[in-house]
Amino acid sequence: MRVAVIGVGLTKFGEVWTKSLRDIALEAGVKAISDANISAADIDAMFIGNMSAGRFSGQEHLGALVADQVGVSIPSTRVEGACASGSLALREGLSSIMSGLSDVVLVGGAEKMTDISTEFATTGLMGAADEEWEGFHGMTFPGLYALMARKHMNDFGTTHEQLACAAVKNHHNATMNKDVAQYPFEITVDKVLNSTMIADPLTLLDCSPITDGGAAIILCREDLAKKYCDTPVYVTGSGQASDTLALHDRKSLTGLQAAVDASRTAYKMAGIGVKDVDVCEVHDCFTIAEVMATEDLGFCKKGVGGKFIEDGNTQIGGKIPVNTSGGLKACGHPVGATGIKQASEIIMQLRGDAGKRQVQGAEIGMTHNVGGSGATCVVNIFRR
Amino acid sequence: MRVAVIGVGLTKFGEVWTKSLRDIALEAGVKAISDANISAADIDAMFIGNMSAGRFSGQEHLGALVADQVGVSIPSTRVEGACASGSLALREGLSSIMSGLSDVVLVGGAEKMTDISTEFATTGLMGAADEEWEGFHGMTFPGLYALMARKHMNDFGTTHEQLACAAVKNHHNATMNKDVAQYPFEITVDKVLNSTMIADPLTLLDCSPITDGGAAIILCREDLAKKYCDTPVYVTGSGQASDTLALHDRKSLTGLQAAVDASRTAYKMAGIGVKDVDVCEVHDCFTIAEVMATEDLGFCKKGVGGKFIEDGNTQIGGKIPVNTSGGLKACGHPVGATGIKQASEIIMQLRGDAGKRQVQGAEIGMTHNVGGSGATCVVNIFRR
Repeated sequence: MRVAVIGVGLTKFGEVWTKSLRDIALEAGVKAISDANISAADIDAMFIGNMSAGRFSGQEHLGALVADQVGVSIPSTRVEGACASGSLALREGLSSIMSGLSDVVLVGGAEKMTDISTEFATTGLMGAADEEWEGFHGMTFPGLYALMARKHMNDFGTTHEQLACAAVKNHHNATMNKDVAQYPFEITVDKVLNSTMIADPLTLLDCSPITDGGAAIILCREDLAKKYCDTPVYVTGSGQASDTLALHDRKSLTGLQAAVDASRTAYKMAGIGVKDVDVCEVHDCFTIAEVMATEDLGFCKKGVGGKFIEDGNTQIGGKIPVNTSGGLKACGHPVGATGIKQASEIIMQLRGDAGKRQVQGAEIGMTHNVGGSGATCVVNIFRR
Repeated sequence: MRVAVIGVGLTKFGEVWTKSLRDIALEAGVKAISDANISAADIDAMFIGNMSAGRFSGQEHLGALVADQVGVSIPSTRVEGACASGSLALREGLSSIMSGLSDVVLVGGAEKMTDISTEFATTGLMGAADEEWEGFHGMTFPGLYALMARKHMNDFGTTHEQLACAAVKNHHNATMNKDVAQYPFEITVDKVLNSTMIADPLTLLDCSPITDGGAAIILCREDLAKKYCDTPVYVTGSGQASDTLALHDRKSLTGLQAAVDASRTAYKMAGIGVKDVDVCEVHDCFTIAEVMATEDLGFCKKGVGGKFIEDGNTQIGGKIPVNTSGGLKACGHPVGATGIKQASEIIMQLRGDAGKRQVQGAEIGMTHNVGGSGATCVVNIFRR
């Protein structure tokens, strides 16, 4: 499979008081259309990732909303899989092109999360987990990931300092991504360890923030790409897998089986192995999630993800640079947009357009996007 | 394009106090799997239509929820386009098979709408319309469709009696669909005219109800169908189109342009004309919607839909039987499930399994599924 990416568009992530959900979605879409050097009339279909607009803005039916904003009457469909909604939208775009139903597709994601209280946001986000067995009983996402962190520490000796190294690296990368990142400033391991305790062992700086933001990319049939673009990037592999919605039903708490499964499918489809990957965006909703992703994707062996990060292997210039954008932690995490933002970062890296955070010679990139506590995982592989 | 349908599963629609959303979804899925004579392990992917679980049950991430319930770890994705969510899920299933990504796909829809107050349901459903411009200012769906009804009456002389004939017919059909229909009883034109006024001219019996229910069908590659099934039905055409989210932005209030556009695409793909259609399920969320659908799909000329229905053309045995299942009006309208229920009815008709409501000799059937006040429309065509 090869589908081309010919355009990307990102809004500035953050607490955006001057724009509504529809403004954010439109801005990302228009930027991607403009970057692809096409007009809206060239687009055959749209897929929009969004999780929470129903609860947070009273607005469902985001597919039609975005079509309306862009001024087209083409098929436009909202896709939802919690925090993996963006990558699922991308997959539906791939499927639409591969099926022959579309030639050019806009896939995007947008989320407006700061118009409500943080408490309501935290409760609402539990819709991504098992509401009947987890949310109803008061569990929160920091709580779920704290359980995983504790178990990882217990089984493998992972330290809070090692977790903190992921956050420190991602904040550093975000300082080179000021156009998008919500928190483009440096932090230190000490600062992470001493920030407010959220769910032991996770402190405030172990957690990704609540964010408004949008992202869009334009996909097209491989043979049409050169018509629009001199530097197309290709999607060469895609994997998606599910796991139990509730954490208590899993065989293991120290990794996400859906991430392992999705990455195997993606590697196979792309015809590559983990050693071929030059740059990767992983779903660091909490620092422990980045440690687990590092292991689940095969960058290092099970149990040593913390040390692998602490030793600098995932920094820019390291063995396998991870989250060059700043990740969810420092770039922000507008849930429906995150998967598309990850893809955008990889595309910019493969185009050689990543500025100060450029990974030299990057040819193959990957995204790892997780829904809930791992009930959905999508891994997409890109090649220049 | 030809994708086969090899199984259908429906729950009893209604006010279901003894089952939760996940129970309903699982029941529909298991029935479809059993009807298709496959095992869950044969399924490569699932697409689940649902609109309101986030607001009504606190549960998003329905794709993973259903995979968890069914006990599989395959890709499973929620698709949302308001009341057209089910048909959108079906389209994603088609795309997945046509792209070569899947051989066998479960597409389903489920909705649990009666666990909350009717007032909250009515407000929540406005997420399908334009929340900023319509919902925020107090508009409701009966109100939106009442505007369309008034305009249709004004422009074409359509009468309330004619609207009522759609409801009377659909309730009659539902008496022959007791296993599924929420309201399988006869009503009269007088009863419709004299029921409680909801939004002038629409009375209670002009409106489809709030419903819990689930529906699922199994799609597979055409060349595999005979392995599983002696009487496969084929999906031969599919169209989807968008329109403005808000009613005030439309050129016309007396029809849905997205329905016209979607049906044209579907007819063309199936290589048929409107005269070839033997049976059709249309989106009668309100009686005026069935009148407009009759015109938009081309069963009669613009403006005469009311008389066309009044004259009996859409009854079983008439020129083009419409809503043999009882429609949304009498079968019930669990929004995410409705599109799949429509497809199930057509499949049963084309198999010759529709019992007392069988349309004799039906070879080609069609579904017309609308999201919101017409911002999304999906038309699917089936052939035995």
